Amino acid sequence: MTEFFPSISKITYEGPKSKNPLAFKYYDPEKIVAGKPMKESLKFAMSYWHTLCGEGVDMFGAGTADKSFGGSDEMGIYRNKVYAGFELMHKLGIEYFCFHDKDIAPEGRTLQEFYTNLDSIVPLIKEQMKKYDIKLLWGTANCFNHPRYVHGAGTSCNADVFAYAAGQIRKALDITMELGGKGYVFWGGREGYETLLNTNMALEQDNMARLMRMAVEYARSKGYTGDFYIEPKPKEPTKHQYDFDSATVLGFLRKYGLDKDFKLNIEANHATLAAHTFQHELCTARINGAFGSIDANQGDPLLGWDTDQFPTNVYDAALCMLEVLKAGGFTNGGLNFDAKARRASMNADDLFLSYIAGMDTFALGLEVADALLQDGRLDEFVKQRYASYQSGIGQAIVNGETSLEQLADYALSLGEVQDHNSGRQEYLEAVVNSVMFRR
Amino acid sequence: MTEFFPSISKITYEGPKSKNPLAFKYYDPEKIVAGKPMKESLKFAMSYWHTLCGEGVDMFGAGTADKSFGGSDEMGIYRNKVYAGFELMHKLGIEYFCFHDKDIAPEGRTLQEFYTNLDSIVPLIKEQMKKYDIKLLWGTANCFNHPRYVHGAGTSCNADVFAYAAGQIRKALDITMELGGKGYVFWGGREGYETLLNTNMALEQDNMARLMRMAVEYARSKGYTGDFYIEPKPKEPTKHQYDFDSATVLGFLRKYGLDKDFKLNIEANHATLAAHTFQHELCTARINGAFGSIDANQGDPLLGWDTDQFPTNVYDAALCMLEVLKAGGFTNGGLNFDAKARRASMNADDLFLSYIAGMDTFALGLEVADALLQDGRLDEFVKQRYASYQSGIGQAIVNGETSLEQLADYALSLGEVQDHNSGRQEYLEAVVNSVMFRR
Amino acid sequence: MTEFFPSISKITYEGPKSKNPLAFKYYDPEKIVAGKPMKESLKFAMSYWHTLCGEGVDMFGAGTADKSFGGSDEMGIYRNKVYAGFELMHKLGIEYFCFHDKDIAPEGRTLQEFYTNLDSIVPLIKEQMKKYDIKLLWGTANCFNHPRYVHGAGTSCNADVFAYAAGQIRKALDITMELGGKGYVFWGGREGYETLLNTNMALEQDNMARLMRMAVEYARSKGYTGDFYIEPKPKEPTKHQYDFDSATVLGFLRKYGLDKDFKLNIEANHATLAAHTFQHELCTARINGAFGSIDANQGDPLLGWDTDQFPTNVYDAALCMLEVLKAGGFTNGGLNFDAKARRASMNADDLFLSYIAGMDTFALGLEVADALLQDGRLDEFVKQRYASYQSGIGQAIVNGETSLEQLADYALSLGEVQDHNSGRQEYLEAVVNSVMFRR
Amino acid sequence: MTEFFPSISKITYEGPKSKNPLAFKYYDPEKIVAGKPMKESLKFAMSYWHTLCGEGVDMFGAGTADKSFGGSDEMGIYRNKVYAGFELMHKLGIEYFCFHDKDIAPEGRTLQEFYTNLDSIVPLIKEQMKKYDIKLLWGTANCFNHPRYVHGAGTSCNADVFAYAAGQIRKALDITMELGGKGYVFWGGREGYETLLNTNMALEQDNMARLMRMAVEYARSKGYTGDFYIEPKPKEPTKHQYDFDSATVLGFLRKYGLDKDFKLNIEANHATLAAHTFQHELCTARINGAFGSIDANQGDPLLGWDTDQFPTNVYDAALCMLEVLKAGGFTNGGLNFDAKARRASMNADDLFLSYIAGMDTFALGLEVADALLQDGRLDEFVKQRYASYQSGIGQAIVNGETSLEQLADYALSLGEVQDHNSGRQEYLEAVVNSVMFRR
Repeated sequence: MTEFFPSISKITYEGPKSKNPLAFKYYDPEKIVAGKPMKESLKFAMSYWHTLCGEGVDMFGAGTADKSFGGSDEMGIYRNKVYAGFELMHKLGIEYFCFHDKDIAPEGRTLQEFYTNLDSIVPLIKEQMKKYDIKLLWGTANCFNHPRYVHGAGTSCNADVFAYAAGQIRKALDITMELGGKGYVFWGGREGYETLLNTNMALEQDNMARLMRMAVEYARSKGYTGDFYIEPKPKEPTKHQYDFDSATVLGFLRKYGLDKDFKLNIEANHATLAAHTFQHELCTARINGAFGSIDANQGDPLLGWDTDQFPTNVYDAALCMLEVLKAGGFTNGGLNFDAKARRASMNADDLFLSYIAGMDTFALGLEVADALLQDGRLDEFVKQRYASYQSGIGQAIVNGETSLEQLADYALSLGEVQDHNSGRQEYLEAVVNSVMFRR
Repeated sequence: MTEFFPSISKITYEGPKSKNPLAFKYYDPEKIVAGKPMKESLKFAMSYWHTLCGEGVDMFGAGTADKSFGGSDEMGIYRNKVYAGFELMHKLGIEYFCFHDKDIAPEGRTLQEFYTNLDSIVPLIKEQMKKYDIKLLWGTANCFNHPRYVHGAGTSCNADVFAYAAGQIRKALDITMELGGKGYVFWGGREGYETLLNTNMALEQDNMARLMRMAVEYARSKGYTGDFYIEPKPKEPTKHQYDFDSATVLGFLRKYGLDKDFKLNIEANHATLAAHTFQHELCTARINGAFGSIDANQGDPLLGWDTDQFPTNVYDAALCMLEVLKAGGFTNGGLNFDAKARRASMNADDLFLSYIAGMDTFALGLEVADALLQDGRLDEFVKQRYASYQSGIGQAIVNGETSLEQLADYALSLGEVQDHNSGRQEYLEAVVNSVMFRR
Repeated sequence: MTEFFPSISKITYEGPKSKNPLAFKYYDPEKIVAGKPMKESLKFAMSYWHTLCGEGVDMFGAGTADKSFGGSDEMGIYRNKVYAGFELMHKLGIEYFCFHDKDIAPEGRTLQEFYTNLDSIVPLIKEQMKKYDIKLLWGTANCFNHPRYVHGAGTSCNADVFAYAAGQIRKALDITMELGGKGYVFWGGREGYETLLNTNMALEQDNMARLMRMAVEYARSKGYTGDFYIEPKPKEPTKHQYDFDSATVLGFLRKYGLDKDFKLNIEANHATLAAHTFQHELCTARINGAFGSIDANQGDPLLGWDTDQFPTNVYDAALCMLEVLKAGGFTNGGLNFDAKARRASMNADDLFLSYIAGMDTFALGLEVADALLQDGRLDEFVKQRYASYQSGIGQAIVNGETSLEQLADYALSLGEVQDHNSGRQEYLEAVVNSVMFRR
Repeated sequence: MTEFFPSISKITYEGPKSKNPLAFKYYDPEKIVAGKPMKESLKFAMSYWHTLCGEGVDMFGAGTADKSFGGSDEMGIYRNKVYAGFELMHKLGIEYFCFHDKDIAPEGRTLQEFYTNLDSIVPLIKEQMKKYDIKLLWGTANCFNHPRYVHGAGTSCNADVFAYAAGQIRKALDITMELGGKGYVFWGGREGYETLLNTNMALEQDNMARLMRMAVEYARSKGYTGDFYIEPKPKEPTKHQYDFDSATVLGFLRKYGLDKDFKLNIEANHATLAAHTFQHELCTARINGAFGSIDANQGDPLLGWDTDQFPTNVYDAALCMLEVLKAGGFTNGGLNFDAKARRASMNADDLFLSYIAGMDTFALGLEVADALLQDGRLDEFVKQRYASYQSGIGQAIVNGETSLEQLADYALSLGEVQDHNSGRQEYLEAVVNSVMFRR
């Protein structure tokens, strides 16, 4: 069989001193960190779309990378994407992938043609999964790219478009189940509005909930036991997207009684576009019992769009993995690189260099997070900081055993509050540096 | 009695051609617009804090305006603020005001002293309200300025601080009830965190909900029938504030079962800081049955903090009033100018010029909003746009009479979706201009 | 000959009360405003690229509008773009256009093929210009879209790419001269860097200046007497673009001695991306003698990229036209709609509706700007505000007849500065509203 | 003599494994890095204002930290600030400081009183400098806080205010010279405008240049041989500040012929507010021969104002120090912590913890920067990337030995450009991580 990256061998761990660009310096898959082999804590997944379909187009420039992988006809190209993708995952030691329906097969001219094309490709994917022992993290339907979704999918003003989305979602769910996926993602790239002047926001949000409920009912009726995820994102491509951030999505799920069925798929760059840190979004998911899966990338904090850069900032990776460890690690979810090589990184080996950069970054992040937990200074500080709620008036507040009136009378007796303990932000940030750079 | 603005007479309506700076050009209080006198649709309220206490301090500069109103001792200053404020409202024809506890009386050294100071001022306020027939829109407690609230009030790590906040809130509720206020606002200026490194976000949010519930129980037990409001705001002063925006607050209220007790007090500049339009926040409140009251001001979209400028943009005012009219107008709420004269607008007459600018802007906004509704083109466009949900497959979706499977099969039969109706954004914006500039 | 927009007649002025979507309500081309027919003050120009080539693609979605205009082969499509474009301009009464080289002809596989294709189209454009009496505002070369420009054009790390850019620019200059254009624009969409880790910023900026100087020398040697413009833009597509804003470009031009040869082409949305108002950028150009031409559109202040929306905000248009009138109006420049119909405004008539919206907005803007000048209150306020520089110590400062020492001694004699005149921002904004809504 | 921080001993270097909060883990002053003792490469300076005067006030909250240092009367407080400040610098091993005039002495009611108060304090500072062998990095005048500067200082509309600024600047220059300072800074906190409606931008900028020129002439006439710096900052406190960023300031200096007299004082957080990286601003200064001094702090990229946090991000520190090393290190300038302990870090030891965090961060940054230079992979990559300008057509371009015409003809001969070398951003970022985390 053709090798698609013949000049690249299996990427191995060579340690921090290695200057071999095509080796891991920090990611040592079987090394035990936080009680598990690294690869189990990290559960890296390849994003099919950026990796195998993204050609480096931007709003002001044509593609710079060829992703036809030597295919001549359309189906041949898509078959070669499968081979190339599994070769890449195998060589990188990545054990999971995720996909949109239209990443893996051409859409054709009708929904029926799309089904047919998908049916032709799925067995090949299944075969490759078996061959390389690679698993599906999650599947999804791309209901945002095609012109028909110009006004939304579940929130389209056209009921036929809503139905078409249902048609894609049914098939994507079927494929996800067929391939043993444990997750299914809704990303509402067009679920929102461009201007309120032409929008019935109430109807649109009700409809979006209806579509999600129907999808849950369908999949559960077919025996699906995996997770459903919503992936929050603000501002892009739609001026206002309904799934703005984690808190917004949680409020939506509660309104429509969907909070038992859905968890969150948090993306780093979507967090920052919503003016939150990545850690904030993960923590919000965790404390609301909605931590699901992660799209790892990084944005440029000085730019206003989703740059989807491969993550190389170890601070962000460490604080992310701290939340993952506090959540008890991934269950059905994992860590998907929803990241694309820069438009100027257009060579085939840039794909490998980019994944190595990202995987090493998260390996470092995991080590730092584990070291922070073992170090214990952060957790102990937080515990002491809130100690007043463990006894006396604080305990009464937490236990619901007091009232506004009683508290007010207690406060009258205090005179002024004593003991303004410092929040110690600078010290705690120095502790993080100390742990990060101790090694 | 002393007149505090002796050079300024009662401000009257002189019409669009007037060049008298101290006259209304558009606000004609008794003119019938949208079926009511303007003043009833707009329910303007003075913000006690900016107007009577704000001295033009910023992070890099000392105050430029003197707000002691000739008072010599501390209590004398606060008494004069009352007289000056009611004179100002009377001369402007403003019939409502709102306040924080510490706006109206000095805090003293203990909570008891604060209570005493408040008890000394409240009767004077009551007397002036009666004299001028001016009403209280809402009251609140300032639980963010004092150093004790450095780590939050309801979310403080110190239970004594929580109790102290309860002590302020009880009193602020008592005063609100005493003065016949129909609203009570929570603004969580310190309810949030500076760094997650030192924060127990789960406990903090639970505690914030506990404080709100206790406040509701107290007030209801005293016979309060008015509204409770949360005022969303992101980013400032706390790096992350829990009440980020309307959608976040709605999710919070649902989580803690507080959604029947609270409505929203939407501020224009807080909306833009959260990356939403003012109209978006109002619409979100309205379609969730949580439209309460409005803090009208405007921000500078190119700056990253709450500039609290007096509103002068008629587009924003018109789209705001469109939402108010669609919500059926204010019930307990109103339109409070949470706005401050610029630091460089430091003269006494600038207060009047600023209010005139804001009131004329909202008068224009009301007229434009009413004209847009009467014109009907926007509403008709929206109605037609979603017509597919009134029959056939669309109706089945809305009525919950179909399933993912049925919709998918229907979509298979469609081939491709026809009839991509244009969203017509440019045309609709031209319609708005056409109505705005028709007069 | 084929009519490309058969259902649309010539757009005429029907006045403010008209509800005909396909009529001007404010743009009355021959009406005398500010001493000239409106059309002379506004000098509207069609942007060839968005209007005739933009298909509604965005980063998450395929095109929604077909711009092949019935052409079958590639050259046929480009010929039909010419016919369609001139028909559109004629029907809208637009008398100018501007273009990138690759808007008007296909690039082919080599520079020679591109030249050949251009040579085939240019005579047709010339013929249509004559037929409809339409003029060229400015030309430019697109040195940013093709993959070869991935690292820049004048700032490419590859000298061959620099040369290729020179090849495009020579031809674009030749065509501009051939068509009687009075302007030539440099927009450095790829002149910048993605990361400083791989960039020699000093060499890149030196080279950029070298390319500009060579272009000036070439065109002047051919007898070109028109203007050269730089169009500032920050952040997009390149992470950092060297032509960040007007002030940056002016500093660059001065460094390399190019300030006598170049003026600025200011775009509204580029201004806001650089955190400036449109008016600020225009004023900066004006007071530095560099006011040239305008790309009129508007951005969404809550989004972080160039939305290029058709301008419909009359405030922005009025403050823009105020600067244009203060600059004495356009000389070689004009007002080009560098704006695209929204992706969801995909029908052919949306093109007309969008231009009408934009032209009516700027017609209103011109009328308001002229009315503000005639009203005189703004200018008189500014004049009085700086009156202290007309005599005494102020005059000595302006005339360079004093020193730090003398001023310091003078200040010692002052005690404290008296007379803090208010900046009156709120009043002045109310004056603007008053003039805008007087009519 | 009183010890102001009696519980804190001299801070010593204890190495990376130390968990002593009051010890350096990375800053080892005499350790040779990049050919010099660390302390010479870093030249840390204390900012007098934040450290000795900043009380934790923000726009929504009163001060949390007491900076009276036990003084009773006003002059006593300012004398104690001197003692406390020098004790703090001594204990931290900081050898430089910088100040605004009003940091070191009370302003009094007249300029004469201010001079008198300054004259009373300066000898004490001089004595302490000698006692501890501490030097002045730079001085400046605070011409932004006082209400008289509400409309600007050099750009005030009131000529008397301009003169008053001259009076402050003369004295601040005298003190700077008296204390042996090698730098004098202009930060134009009010040099800008709030609204163009009331502003004569041309006159204001001319006047600003006049004031700078007079200051230079005065100081040079007194024998001052140090540097003048402008510190760029956008947006805050003035809506638009004229010294927006480095490129803007360079353009201003060139316009007024001041570019030989002024260098730049670059602040990290000001860079990010202007949408640039810290490294970008430093590099811009360096390649324009204007690298002067540094205000080291960090902002919160998700907030829109100057948070002035103590720097703890090692990436930013490393890329900063890389520029410093490339510039050949500091000459007259140094690295001033223009940073304040968070409002919630209100205890006296937080001052020390904050400086330790910042100094250790920059020590790490220096080590990483030096290691990156020694590693050589980044520089070698850049060198190779631009190799095409070292010979052939590239060399001709750089040497000015070709023309647009010649280049165009050369390009015609090329067909298409070959050899699109990857920009390798991901790989280069991985190299940085590799060097940072190798140790």
